[in-house]
Amino acid sequence: MTTAVNHYGRHGDLVDAAIAKLKLHFGERLTTATAVRDQHGHDVSWHPSYPPDAVVFPDTADEVSRIVATCHAFDVPVIPFGTGTSCEGHVAALMGGICIDLSRLDRILTIQPDDMTATVEAGVTRKRLNAELRDTGLFFPVDPGADASLGGMASTRASGTNAMRYGTMKDNVVSLGVVLPNGDRIRTASHARKSAAGYDLTRLWVGSEGTLGIVTDVTVKLHPIPDHVVAISASFSTLEQAVGFVLVATKLTDSLARIELLDELQVEAVNSYSKLSLPVEPTLFIELHGSRAAVEAALPFIETEAHAAGASRFDTAVSAEARGRLWQARHDIWWANLALRPGASALPTDSCVPVSRLVEAILAAKADVRDLGLLAPICGHVGDGNFHLCVLFDPADPDERQRVETLTKRLAARAIALQGTSTGEHGIGHGKMAALVAEHGPAIRVMAAIKRAVDPHNIMNPGKIFNLAEAPPFN
Amino acid sequence: MTTAVNHYGRHGDLVDAAIAKLKLHFGERLTTATAVRDQHGHDVSWHPSYPPDAVVFPDTADEVSRIVATCHAFDVPVIPFGTGTSCEGHVAALMGGICIDLSRLDRILTIQPDDMTATVEAGVTRKRLNAELRDTGLFFPVDPGADASLGGMASTRASGTNAMRYGTMKDNVVSLGVVLPNGDRIRTASHARKSAAGYDLTRLWVGSEGTLGIVTDVTVKLHPIPDHVVAISASFSTLEQAVGFVLVATKLTDSLARIELLDELQVEAVNSYSKLSLPVEPTLFIELHGSRAAVEAALPFIETEAHAAGASRFDTAVSAEARGRLWQARHDIWWANLALRPGASALPTDSCVPVSRLVEAILAAKADVRDLGLLAPICGHVGDGNFHLCVLFDPADPDERQRVETLTKRLAARAIALQGTSTGEHGIGHGKMAALVAEHGPAIRVMAAIKRAVDPHNIMNPGKIFNLAEAPPFN
Repeated sequence: MTTAVNHYGRHGDLVDAAIAKLKLHFGERLTTATAVRDQHGHDVSWHPSYPPDAVVFPDTADEVSRIVATCHAFDVPVIPFGTGTSCEGHVAALMGGICIDLSRLDRILTIQPDDMTATVEAGVTRKRLNAELRDTGLFFPVDPGADASLGGMASTRASGTNAMRYGTMKDNVVSLGVVLPNGDRIRTASHARKSAAGYDLTRLWVGSEGTLGIVTDVTVKLHPIPDHVVAISASFSTLEQAVGFVLVATKLTDSLARIELLDELQVEAVNSYSKLSLPVEPTLFIELHGSRAAVEAALPFIETEAHAAGASRFDTAVSAEARGRLWQARHDIWWANLALRPGASALPTDSCVPVSRLVEAILAAKADVRDLGLLAPICGHVGDGNFHLCVLFDPADPDERQRVETLTKRLAARAIALQGTSTGEHGIGHGKMAALVAEHGPAIRVMAAIKRAVDPHNIMNPGKIFNLAEAPPFN
Repeated sequence: MTTAVNHYGRHGDLVDAAIAKLKLHFGERLTTATAVRDQHGHDVSWHPSYPPDAVVFPDTADEVSRIVATCHAFDVPVIPFGTGTSCEGHVAALMGGICIDLSRLDRILTIQPDDMTATVEAGVTRKRLNAELRDTGLFFPVDPGADASLGGMASTRASGTNAMRYGTMKDNVVSLGVVLPNGDRIRTASHARKSAAGYDLTRLWVGSEGTLGIVTDVTVKLHPIPDHVVAISASFSTLEQAVGFVLVATKLTDSLARIELLDELQVEAVNSYSKLSLPVEPTLFIELHGSRAAVEAALPFIETEAHAAGASRFDTAVSAEARGRLWQARHDIWWANLALRPGASALPTDSCVPVSRLVEAILAAKADVRDLGLLAPICGHVGDGNFHLCVLFDPADPDERQRVETLTKRLAARAIALQGTSTGEHGIGHGKMAALVAEHGPAIRVMAAIKRAVDPHNIMNPGKIFNLAEAPPFN
């Protein structure tokens, strides 16, 4: 195993040499300005900023290759940067190095309506792609909270509210253009919608968090815009009732596109911030997608089952405006939560368990929050068993910080004990490495072996996902 | 890189030692009988048998681990064997070694209706699983031609006629139990339906063809049995019309579960073998799945579009019996084709291209068949862009064999040129290694690097997928 270069340590001269060499080509597009470095050293999370030594803004995949080849030659860490909206310190330059900001790789390369695919450069954001698709009758469904870049979404295996019907990035990436840690370029797959041609490199790169190379273009599946959409808000006296309903509804219709759970505190926050007047009870925001006939036929069944499960209220929203109000409120949850405790920091947790264990997981989480004296509304993509606590805390209060850390550890341990994962969609970064070890045990050694094989000098986003020193190679 | 052990070469004594050691534990469950070895050295394809040195029948994953650990200690190749229904020589013991027949790992471990998942041992077949699910209202949709084992289906990334709506094994495997090449056991993922926890080992193992270890159990997604099913047979004057209709229909309804194309010759074979009287024209067998409302609403639109596209005939089959007749005919295609030329061998090809290139790919394939004077009906999972020629040839005629090889080479090259793949669902085995190089270029080096990292002694199904000697490690 090769030890990672650390510019804070003995290899600072190599970093300087790499920067000097890149500067010759990139000129103004390479900067060592403190403000830019600082901005590129952190994401939206509570993790502190670890600024890179320089930030470079390539225009093309060839330029990305040139940068990586240079860093490979000088043994200097490389950190890819999309929109900086990850949640576990994914972009932190823990060992210094060169940050590659991919925002200028922003071309839509091809849209193939017949194949229902689009190929875009890594810096294109999901909203931009959907804007470009406007006249095709197709859309790209994966919708994490942020307007993230497609390259970043692929690299973190992002998902969102539509995953139930349309899947996550794992299901929607057809092929990736990748720059390997030595600067070579590969394509992970053809543009065929299915393939049995060797190892599934596409899926290996999806979720690899920049540790195996840099994604420079992404070919994604598109989906027909549904003919008919109905949104529903349904309130239940208890969490058991709400989740019990979900288990029935899932088998009742294939029109369920979104099922979002909000606990009482989350409803309170949303009511206050978005001026709604939902009953302060566990609530589901649901959306049905399909043909008009399918959705209209499913609706009465769903309403009957909701009432049978104990729903105290069941409201539908059909017009785009009424649906928009509901989903805007859902999308604004982050701000609604921050308004619950002005001045506080927010930490999003990310458990995902088999749906049959969801009630148990959420009730235990709520008990933890109560025991630890914390404030944390809960929302979740409940059709997938994925839920987030939004922990509101004062980062300047060491005792509260300690309690937040206790909470996140308990949540991860419990998700794993319930045959689930500590992260459904946010990834590991450097924030959840211990949880990954607890979850994957000896399989970490396989991940580390792959990392070493593809990136033997450990220059690609080093210090993320796993600690190589704890995972000996196979022999 | 370590050179693979070759029992035909200098390491025969090590194979004998490994067999002697395993015999102590497995007794009658380890055999070196010629008939059994021979039967385990080939699949359903035209590739010759390469018998292993011994076949062992473990009862548990722990016993699989014991066998692999022994083979690891003695540096002896290990070849996993499911039902032997692969198509590219996947089970051939090219370098000798021990074949592990997994048919006795046949327990259904858990069925979780609320999570819509089942966990089964690797030897359980897809039909057996569906029989066990009978009372749950759920089913497992992936349906390759054979009644293959779930372990084998995962290892070859199998799919079938339902892939359009339900996906392939890549989409339906949640987690795998795996024995690594050193005998260690890992689980590739938790049982959560989505995860962002590190590298996607599940997807890496799906399709790895036994080259990275042995799958011992499989957790799969289940799906609700659709409320309503309608089958359709639609005939068109030309291939362009049939495929043109598919492109429209795909965007018209989400109820399309299956779209199978049969060319004129294929229709002739089916008419004759299954006593049908379909017009001898390019024909689509279609199946709609969904709620009664959704399917019944979609049907008139589909019929209208089919006629608009040029359909000369459009018949629906609603009763289970009528649908059964149609799909039985589809499933019996292999036998129908063999009956076209009694005594001939059949070779199935497996191109998959973006759907927009499908007409071009199939017309060129038909021209090749004509030019080369061969007989090869065509069927295909046309919604995915995947099609098979079933080449009927006399293996004892060297000239005809040569022409068959020319055909398969042209097909692979063309699929790749059209941004597709030489194998949509059959895999590489040792039959398509050259095509994989043509398709993946420098990415093969990444695959080989992963193989070397996980299986440094190259004992797991050696000689399959890639030639390690042609893919130098990264440094």
